[in-house]
Amino acid sequence: MDCNKILEEIYNEVKPFLGKGRLADYIPALSSVDPNSLGIAIVGLDGCECEIGDAQTNFSVQSISKVYTLAMAFSEYGDKLWSSVGKEPSGNPFNSLVQLEHENGIPRNPFINAGALVITDKVLSTCKRPKSAILDFVRKVSDNEDIYFDKSVAESEKDEASRNLALAHFMQSFGNIENDVDRLIDVYSHHCALSMNCLDMARSFLFLANHGTNPFNGEKILSRSQAKRLNALMLTCGCYDESGDFAFRVGLPGKSGVGGGIVAIIPGEMAIAVWSPELNEFGNSLAGVEALELFTTKYERSIF
Amino acid sequence: MDCNKILEEIYNEVKPFLGKGRLADYIPALSSVDPNSLGIAIVGLDGCECEIGDAQTNFSVQSISKVYTLAMAFSEYGDKLWSSVGKEPSGNPFNSLVQLEHENGIPRNPFINAGALVITDKVLSTCKRPKSAILDFVRKVSDNEDIYFDKSVAESEKDEASRNLALAHFMQSFGNIENDVDRLIDVYSHHCALSMNCLDMARSFLFLANHGTNPFNGEKILSRSQAKRLNALMLTCGCYDESGDFAFRVGLPGKSGVGGGIVAIIPGEMAIAVWSPELNEFGNSLAGVEALELFTTKYERSIF
Amino acid sequence: MDCNKILEEIYNEVKPFLGKGRLADYIPALSSVDPNSLGIAIVGLDGCECEIGDAQTNFSVQSISKVYTLAMAFSEYGDKLWSSVGKEPSGNPFNSLVQLEHENGIPRNPFINAGALVITDKVLSTCKRPKSAILDFVRKVSDNEDIYFDKSVAESEKDEASRNLALAHFMQSFGNIENDVDRLIDVYSHHCALSMNCLDMARSFLFLANHGTNPFNGEKILSRSQAKRLNALMLTCGCYDESGDFAFRVGLPGKSGVGGGIVAIIPGEMAIAVWSPELNEFGNSLAGVEALELFTTKYERSIF
Amino acid sequence: MDCNKILEEIYNEVKPFLGKGRLADYIPALSSVDPNSLGIAIVGLDGCECEIGDAQTNFSVQSISKVYTLAMAFSEYGDKLWSSVGKEPSGNPFNSLVQLEHENGIPRNPFINAGALVITDKVLSTCKRPKSAILDFVRKVSDNEDIYFDKSVAESEKDEASRNLALAHFMQSFGNIENDVDRLIDVYSHHCALSMNCLDMARSFLFLANHGTNPFNGEKILSRSQAKRLNALMLTCGCYDESGDFAFRVGLPGKSGVGGGIVAIIPGEMAIAVWSPELNEFGNSLAGVEALELFTTKYERSIF
Repeated sequence: MDCNKILEEIYNEVKPFLGKGRLADYIPALSSVDPNSLGIAIVGLDGCECEIGDAQTNFSVQSISKVYTLAMAFSEYGDKLWSSVGKEPSGNPFNSLVQLEHENGIPRNPFINAGALVITDKVLSTCKRPKSAILDFVRKVSDNEDIYFDKSVAESEKDEASRNLALAHFMQSFGNIENDVDRLIDVYSHHCALSMNCLDMARSFLFLANHGTNPFNGEKILSRSQAKRLNALMLTCGCYDESGDFAFRVGLPGKSGVGGGIVAIIPGEMAIAVWSPELNEFGNSLAGVEALELFTTKYERSIF
Repeated sequence: MDCNKILEEIYNEVKPFLGKGRLADYIPALSSVDPNSLGIAIVGLDGCECEIGDAQTNFSVQSISKVYTLAMAFSEYGDKLWSSVGKEPSGNPFNSLVQLEHENGIPRNPFINAGALVITDKVLSTCKRPKSAILDFVRKVSDNEDIYFDKSVAESEKDEASRNLALAHFMQSFGNIENDVDRLIDVYSHHCALSMNCLDMARSFLFLANHGTNPFNGEKILSRSQAKRLNALMLTCGCYDESGDFAFRVGLPGKSGVGGGIVAIIPGEMAIAVWSPELNEFGNSLAGVEALELFTTKYERSIF
Repeated sequence: MDCNKILEEIYNEVKPFLGKGRLADYIPALSSVDPNSLGIAIVGLDGCECEIGDAQTNFSVQSISKVYTLAMAFSEYGDKLWSSVGKEPSGNPFNSLVQLEHENGIPRNPFINAGALVITDKVLSTCKRPKSAILDFVRKVSDNEDIYFDKSVAESEKDEASRNLALAHFMQSFGNIENDVDRLIDVYSHHCALSMNCLDMARSFLFLANHGTNPFNGEKILSRSQAKRLNALMLTCGCYDESGDFAFRVGLPGKSGVGGGIVAIIPGEMAIAVWSPELNEFGNSLAGVEALELFTTKYERSIF
Repeated sequence: MDCNKILEEIYNEVKPFLGKGRLADYIPALSSVDPNSLGIAIVGLDGCECEIGDAQTNFSVQSISKVYTLAMAFSEYGDKLWSSVGKEPSGNPFNSLVQLEHENGIPRNPFINAGALVITDKVLSTCKRPKSAILDFVRKVSDNEDIYFDKSVAESEKDEASRNLALAHFMQSFGNIENDVDRLIDVYSHHCALSMNCLDMARSFLFLANHGTNPFNGEKILSRSQAKRLNALMLTCGCYDESGDFAFRVGLPGKSGVGGGIVAIIPGEMAIAVWSPELNEFGNSLAGVEALELFTTKYERSIF
């Protein structure tokens, strides 16, 4: 497979979708990016890397960061983690409180906001300096020391945190949050505000394609079985309430963020990251989903 | 891989789980089977077949039959099908009416009862003799002319059909059922009452491992893309409200039934069917899930 | 208080509201009535009767009939009735199935459709000829032998009964319906199709204003305590999901129907019935609610 | 009616119910009161007052205080208030978030916690010193200058405020809270911690029995129509998810608190307050509901 040729074809076929979605608007920093941005990067376990378009422009990773904190907490807690958070798709919007009320404050999975808050709470419980620890982790798995939080995005997130504050206090009322809620929201707002580009992001997911071992330094982050499980979670729950449709159309484990990024992996082979900031009705990058569907349908690279 | 040796190991490791679940009891025919039954069959696209235990004892396929009717309707309607039924995991019990009310009578996916009724309704709309057509389909894909409905199970199902009648009338009130409800329930009760064994069942799912083409006669039942999509649906929605956990533990597309059967596929390779009638709290075969997790964890045969 | 003068004032003030609501349209018979109809009747325990407008034109009583069947069943079963149906406002639309699923098939109160079906089921369990028994009851309490079912409305109801069939089968799946569902829907569709005018209706509720005793023949239908309880139920649950607002604005126990009738009582004094077929967004007569609010606000005749 | 004789009879009949409920235990201050306490006070608009048992022992008024803040806000905002809070019974537990999510952050009524928080938020918006303003109001309507907040209860409430913080942040995310959430919770925790006895409480509700005018100083707090409306709200929503049952059994507008107090009124006549700290399963005083049902059933003093 000629990586560059494939990316070029996809890029050209997806271009016409620009202008058909809408930017996330809940914080100013997200609504002021160039809506016509489009970048794709593929990174193989064989060391091959190729990219096209705005693949080296940084964007806000948002919910994609939930995979990093989950990997950190899963590595630390093992299967004990699953007494605080479930493993099932939610069938509800990503920031819903309804399910929590019916299921005693245990979020359905680690990728809805409630579940991600529980995971970040675990990171707080195990790290003295959680923000530094998260930065260290991301730099390590992406093999890039120059990854930072976008401070202005982090501050904006905190200004618009009413719903997340509600979720955290609500779970605390069930005993499922261990740390101070304001501190939790601060750390959570920071990791959502990580600033990365497609190349960083594809690299940073390679350890999941590589059965848990960081290909850049050989460190075993998760066991083979844990990596399988985290990948399964991405497939069933990674794209909010469009996860089933994403599995249906794309057929790869992946994770999206409202910054317009989506990253997916082919186990044993590669990671692919797309960024285009306009979102579809489910909050996933409109052009990004198209690009990934094209990739798997046309080149028959699905896990199914 | 020595197929027989693997099956023997799994069989012996799973045996101790017998006696820890409970039989389905909503109809007498299901509660009177031998709770200690355990059978496994593996059928490869390369023609290799192996089996152990009660792999040739017939059981009631129940919800596994929803895959057959879905394949029939998908083949006939193509993507038009998805205006009547969704593709998302439900987050609710398999026979819930709640979600229907909130989403205008469109079931979340084709594997919850509501969705399967919509699919069967489509089969009624396209086949003059829908029960015969279903039998024909199953015989063809399992390469076995001797597959029948268990009439006594079908009658029992109809006697206990209050919930399904409610679902069907409810969807009809939203205009999402086209045929007479009593006739629909009759056909539905019959296909759930198909009587098959593990070997039949593994064979009957080979076309899904074979990208849509029936390996026994070369007939293209679904396109490659459609087969990918149906497999994705099984992964995200195939095991009721335990689907996420099944993907997490087993990591294969699969479908279960309250008769105690579970069948899963490895795309491009094989199908594996397990039967053990005692169920766990989610309505899936307790020993069956254990057997499949063992299979994929120990022998690293997951899609992730 | 000069009864006729009051009615005239209310009638003139309410007239301008005609044309601002919309007719019930789920069955043809309801959508073909004259939308400008407006009638009011007041009947006192002292024998005084006055009326205005279309007070002697018959209309379809619809849900108001739920009060008759409830009185019949309450009289027969006493407090045992409340193990099959609750006494709390529902907070959900009148034909919702959601609450039933969360509360094991026990409807929240006897005035939502599910609860009324349970009540009618009790009437079937105690009367060999339930339709005749209901007619007899209504004729007795309204002191009018010439009250009948409108057969064409009853037939139309049965043709559009999908939702009620769903409710009844659903409750039967929880064991909370004793009789054949089709027979139940037939009887239910008939009592909803009772044809009465404002004068009949006001008379027929006098026994509730009279602490349970029929003023026309002295028969004790309910005990004083039971009448108090049924009146309380009308206040908290009588006007669908607008019951709180009705209590807030009107402040009287009352019951409405989608045929455009509303009837209310002042305990110890009188009953007042209004009919105007255009409905507000909650399914209650728009002009009817206005007329009753005017009556109680202007003339300070509330129970509060 | 001999007021003292009636109270004595009720007192003796209700005594045996002591020991059958359980104390509120979410804050220590509530779980340490004497569970055998029982007091009743009746205060008439004619000036007659009678009492029995622990009618002069102070207790924590808790949710009963929601009536005072509602009267303050209703008096200030008039019907504009109802764009921020509904008037319908909720059909959900008093501290549920589910309904808020389905109805865009508008609580169903002012007596569930969410609704009471909205009301207290309005008090904050109109009073510079809201805690003083609330104290002033309560002292005025109860004709007792010696009413205070129990500071230790208020502090305990704030320590256990996770659920209320969640509700307030959640509504703020919908734009339905105007003030700082921490300040709101502080004021709310204080008014719930008002310390009063049965006599105070019965007096403090007399203005509602008196059509809105404070009988102690002639001040018109609410218009006659507003008083009617507030009374209707107490009847339909005053006793949490047992409101329908309370209307059914007692048949009077009333309000309860988890401190074990219940107060009810007979419009135009009197107010009656009961205190007994053991609660039934719905969070209402077990002996208190019994006492009030006895009062209305035996002496036929219901509004129905």
